[in-house]
Amino acid sequence: MTDERLQDPLLDWVAGPSDLRQMPDRDLARLADELRAEVISAVSQTGGHLGSSLGVVELSVAIHAVFNTPMDKLIWDVSHQCYPHKILTGRRDRIRTLRQKDGLSGFTKRSESPYDPFGAAHSSTSISAALGFAVGRDMGQATGDAIAVIGDGAISAGMAYEAMNNAGHLGKRLIVILNDNEMSIAPPVGAMSSYLSRMYASDPLARVRSMAEGVESAMPASMREGVKRARQMVTGLTGSGTLFEELGFDYVGPIDGHDLDQLLPVLRAVRARATGPVLIHCCTVKGKGYAPAEAAADRGHGVSKFDPATGTQAKSSPGAPSYTAVFGASLTAAAARDDRIVAVTAAMPDGTGLSKMASRFPARVFDVGIAEQHAVTFCAGMAASGLRPFCAIYSTFLQRGYDQVVHDVALQGLPVRFAIDRAGLVGADGATHAGAFDIGYLTSLPGFTVMAAADEAELVHMVATAAAHDSGPIAFRYPRGAGTGVALPDQGEVLEIGKGRVLREGADVAILSLGAHLDECLAGADDLAQAGIGATVADARFAKPLDGDLVEALARDHRVLLTVEEGAEGGFGSVVMHELARRGCFDRGLAIRNVCLPDRFIEQASPAEMYEDAGMTAPDIAATAREALAGTGNVVPLSLAR
Amino acid sequence: MTDERLQDPLLDWVAGPSDLRQMPDRDLARLADELRAEVISAVSQTGGHLGSSLGVVELSVAIHAVFNTPMDKLIWDVSHQCYPHKILTGRRDRIRTLRQKDGLSGFTKRSESPYDPFGAAHSSTSISAALGFAVGRDMGQATGDAIAVIGDGAISAGMAYEAMNNAGHLGKRLIVILNDNEMSIAPPVGAMSSYLSRMYASDPLARVRSMAEGVESAMPASMREGVKRARQMVTGLTGSGTLFEELGFDYVGPIDGHDLDQLLPVLRAVRARATGPVLIHCCTVKGKGYAPAEAAADRGHGVSKFDPATGTQAKSSPGAPSYTAVFGASLTAAAARDDRIVAVTAAMPDGTGLSKMASRFPARVFDVGIAEQHAVTFCAGMAASGLRPFCAIYSTFLQRGYDQVVHDVALQGLPVRFAIDRAGLVGADGATHAGAFDIGYLTSLPGFTVMAAADEAELVHMVATAAAHDSGPIAFRYPRGAGTGVALPDQGEVLEIGKGRVLREGADVAILSLGAHLDECLAGADDLAQAGIGATVADARFAKPLDGDLVEALARDHRVLLTVEEGAEGGFGSVVMHELARRGCFDRGLAIRNVCLPDRFIEQASPAEMYEDAGMTAPDIAATAREALAGTGNVVPLSLAR
Repeated sequence: MTDERLQDPLLDWVAGPSDLRQMPDRDLARLADELRAEVISAVSQTGGHLGSSLGVVELSVAIHAVFNTPMDKLIWDVSHQCYPHKILTGRRDRIRTLRQKDGLSGFTKRSESPYDPFGAAHSSTSISAALGFAVGRDMGQATGDAIAVIGDGAISAGMAYEAMNNAGHLGKRLIVILNDNEMSIAPPVGAMSSYLSRMYASDPLARVRSMAEGVESAMPASMREGVKRARQMVTGLTGSGTLFEELGFDYVGPIDGHDLDQLLPVLRAVRARATGPVLIHCCTVKGKGYAPAEAAADRGHGVSKFDPATGTQAKSSPGAPSYTAVFGASLTAAAARDDRIVAVTAAMPDGTGLSKMASRFPARVFDVGIAEQHAVTFCAGMAASGLRPFCAIYSTFLQRGYDQVVHDVALQGLPVRFAIDRAGLVGADGATHAGAFDIGYLTSLPGFTVMAAADEAELVHMVATAAAHDSGPIAFRYPRGAGTGVALPDQGEVLEIGKGRVLREGADVAILSLGAHLDECLAGADDLAQAGIGATVADARFAKPLDGDLVEALARDHRVLLTVEEGAEGGFGSVVMHELARRGCFDRGLAIRNVCLPDRFIEQASPAEMYEDAGMTAPDIAATAREALAGTGNVVPLSLAR
Repeated sequence: MTDERLQDPLLDWVAGPSDLRQMPDRDLARLADELRAEVISAVSQTGGHLGSSLGVVELSVAIHAVFNTPMDKLIWDVSHQCYPHKILTGRRDRIRTLRQKDGLSGFTKRSESPYDPFGAAHSSTSISAALGFAVGRDMGQATGDAIAVIGDGAISAGMAYEAMNNAGHLGKRLIVILNDNEMSIAPPVGAMSSYLSRMYASDPLARVRSMAEGVESAMPASMREGVKRARQMVTGLTGSGTLFEELGFDYVGPIDGHDLDQLLPVLRAVRARATGPVLIHCCTVKGKGYAPAEAAADRGHGVSKFDPATGTQAKSSPGAPSYTAVFGASLTAAAARDDRIVAVTAAMPDGTGLSKMASRFPARVFDVGIAEQHAVTFCAGMAASGLRPFCAIYSTFLQRGYDQVVHDVALQGLPVRFAIDRAGLVGADGATHAGAFDIGYLTSLPGFTVMAAADEAELVHMVATAAAHDSGPIAFRYPRGAGTGVALPDQGEVLEIGKGRVLREGADVAILSLGAHLDECLAGADDLAQAGIGATVADARFAKPLDGDLVEALARDHRVLLTVEEGAEGGFGSVVMHELARRGCFDRGLAIRNVCLPDRFIEQASPAEMYEDAGMTAPDIAATAREALAGTGNVVPLSLAR
């Protein structure tokens, strides 16, 4: 299937899901084929989460054809698989703006459509949210069925378990569709599934698993293997049928999530007769129906723009290595020198760069699945045993393990090393993935050391510094994307804890940067120099412990002090101001300004455009300095008055 | 059993766990009786978690008698049940200082003893930590077996599920003891358990559950009911034997956790032969062996000092109502007027005060169990459906749902109301329970409204304000313990969002308070008045949106501005300084000082003593103001210079 258009396409007639409900079932299968072609065509132009979306084409059609969306609330977990859903729900005309500035979000988003009743991007939230809607419905709010679609990876997170536990206890009508793409459906299982779903349609609330047990012995020998495999699919998974039933769900499945002849009757039967929580176990193939995606190791999970005929993706021009790659290489080198170094990822070995270390030291890299809470405390336990764990989690996902950072790591002063990738604004993934808050929530913790890398060479030093730091927890943050192209040291140096560095000196303005916005600060200083204003530029390196003497000297010797950070208010600027207040540096006047993320969420665009939106470019920095300087015109700088 | 001492006590001969390993088994049972009496005697003098500790007396003896602690790592989940463990591990001489200033912690604590390899206080962390030790051992660190003891409530949290999932996958030798005190063991089940544990001792890694299935038909009819009940105990629980086995654990049990004749052989067999993760299901009785605790509804969970002969607890003198009670009553009254109001607690209906509303509106209060992540997003879903949810979680435990607060609530601007009890320092529970960080981590979120109650009348207004606030998320924080005794309004007023109030005016110093430290600020102002220094005292009410005009006016009209809050650096003081920087209020001089928690964890004592330790008393506030004022002596206040 490529992007060639079918004749007289049905899809052109679909203005919204209600049109699906008028179509005969046989047309829905054709519509699904067209929808798949449209997804491939659109993503070939935008890039994005291709494989996941191709895996739920039929499911998207079936749910909208059977349920009364948007009165019924359809909640996609993580929601990177929402492209077919967006096309069906009135957003086809904008589908080629996916993940671009001012375009459609790559995720569901409440502000974008009434068909997106609950947005997502982090995983495993959908059952909790759907249960909330179900309670609202039962208490008289104008909302219908609540349907959560969740993948087999996402359902293994603790949060989903908590939600199922509560949903089973409450017993409210609630539909959870497990989108299981761990394995494809082999023909015998598919046949069995068809059989089971036909049986189910006639007796929907019987439990298919126990039915399977009953019919197994009555099956012809050639089918028995299929029955066995179907049962293994139910019981062999983490998050298996048995578990769901124990938690109080009716379990239906497994069914073939690409076969509308199974999906439609099962969904209709559940809609007609469910009285409590029901789990429908759907097996799908990630990348389904597009050979290049099906053939790819990651099943086309996240792709850049590609040629739809061949699947060949556009290559980014070779440039500086990414921060992620530099981290992965540095840590691997450190691990080669120190066998106490271990590393943990929560289901992101490639995204975090740990796969490099895993390929060399497979027994020392732990992928714990989508389980950030466990990841952090597991690291704390390893640190307590004498190992040197690196916990590599994106800034936005470390929020999931925040209490563990406080309670298990900081309170006990355990030397866990946090490698915090995707700090700051991240581009196409938008506000949900921004790493905005970590500086604030880590620097408020007693005993924590918090660093930020100004470039990829600094990152190499920070890996070495963290490896050597056994006296307490330490974190280092760095942005998404390519480094600055600076030369990389052969081996990292252990930095002096709590010491910053001055990069250039000037008389009027001090710019104190933390992290990868240093180049913008230097460019801003160039702008100021052209206006005859001298600027000192310093890199704090450490948000905590802060280089208080450096900060005090900058305050003493300049009329204006700017703090610059790729994070929200309440982070580095706040740490600096607390220190200045403690030292009495504000008492006689200091025009301090904080250049940081504004108090709103920044929408998707390129990172550069997002920082422009945030008012954090080099010209913004220079303008802020000039504004502050203007306000101090009639005050003699203290350094001259003495 | 009371506190009467036995003759010639064995306990006097126990200097540490190695002494238990020398004793014949028959003496261990007598030792357990003495240990129980000692726990009762000690807690009668200190108050504390009596019921949980009495429930694990035999388990504590058995584990230390069988395993080689402290080389083997014993990790108590939550660890409020650790009193017998502390008595056995060399801390008997200090056991009557439990939970007091400079005394033993009421929890395990690494800094207190090598027998406490991993501290706790929040629940469900033990399996993650134990797995970390197991990995360390297998990588050559000097550590032996890893044993986690976790309750049936704690094991239902998502984090424990994540840990078991990972432990089962890794397959490392690891011992998890499920301390299941949901039900007592009736005689037939007990008999069955004895039978099973004898069988187990001879064939330890067989799965007892399937053994039970096999032997059931062979049992005399009189025993069959017992077998059935034993099996129900395994499969009928959330977190059941079936689940454990699916996750890759060998399952052993259930056994009677008060019967050393079962505990000792099972633990010895597991120690001798386990190769992978093993779960031992122990049934215990909370409050076991002390009639007043066994008879109490909460099984003596947390008690104040009591008469050991009768169990009668000391009553606190009647005074002002607690903030918790005022919240519970206010919310119940609001719920009576507005049927969209619902409330959620994570296993703390009494602690949060929601039990009052639950008794009147049982269908509108949801206890989701120890599941803060789910609690927050469940509320977000209810808010999206049109309900008005109050999410009542202590400050320290809300950390568990931080990502959900960011991702599901703040990013979507959903009107979830957060009732944050135990804000600030909390007393005997110590640093692990301090509500230190919420102001910072909530005010950094765009669109959040954050209030703090200065007294219990303010709390009533804030409940009303939150109930009426449909335009986005809103939180209000209030401390543990009794209010100030101020008169309570019949009905709360809806406060103007983002407006503070001035309580008294003075010329020299401005004290801007957020929250319940307002009385200390007023007392501090009295101190200053006696020294001839005039102080304005204001209550910000809102940390966000901040009353910027009030802040600017205070800065303009005074030489010195103090911010005061019951929270860590990076909270309210930071918000104020960011606003002052933005408005250029520092440019010409302002002696600002932040009175907040210092950058260290504050150890247990009474809340008043803890705030003294933190340097936050009224005299501290006055002294800080005087120090700041002294530094500005030669600067003319701006308000006079104009």
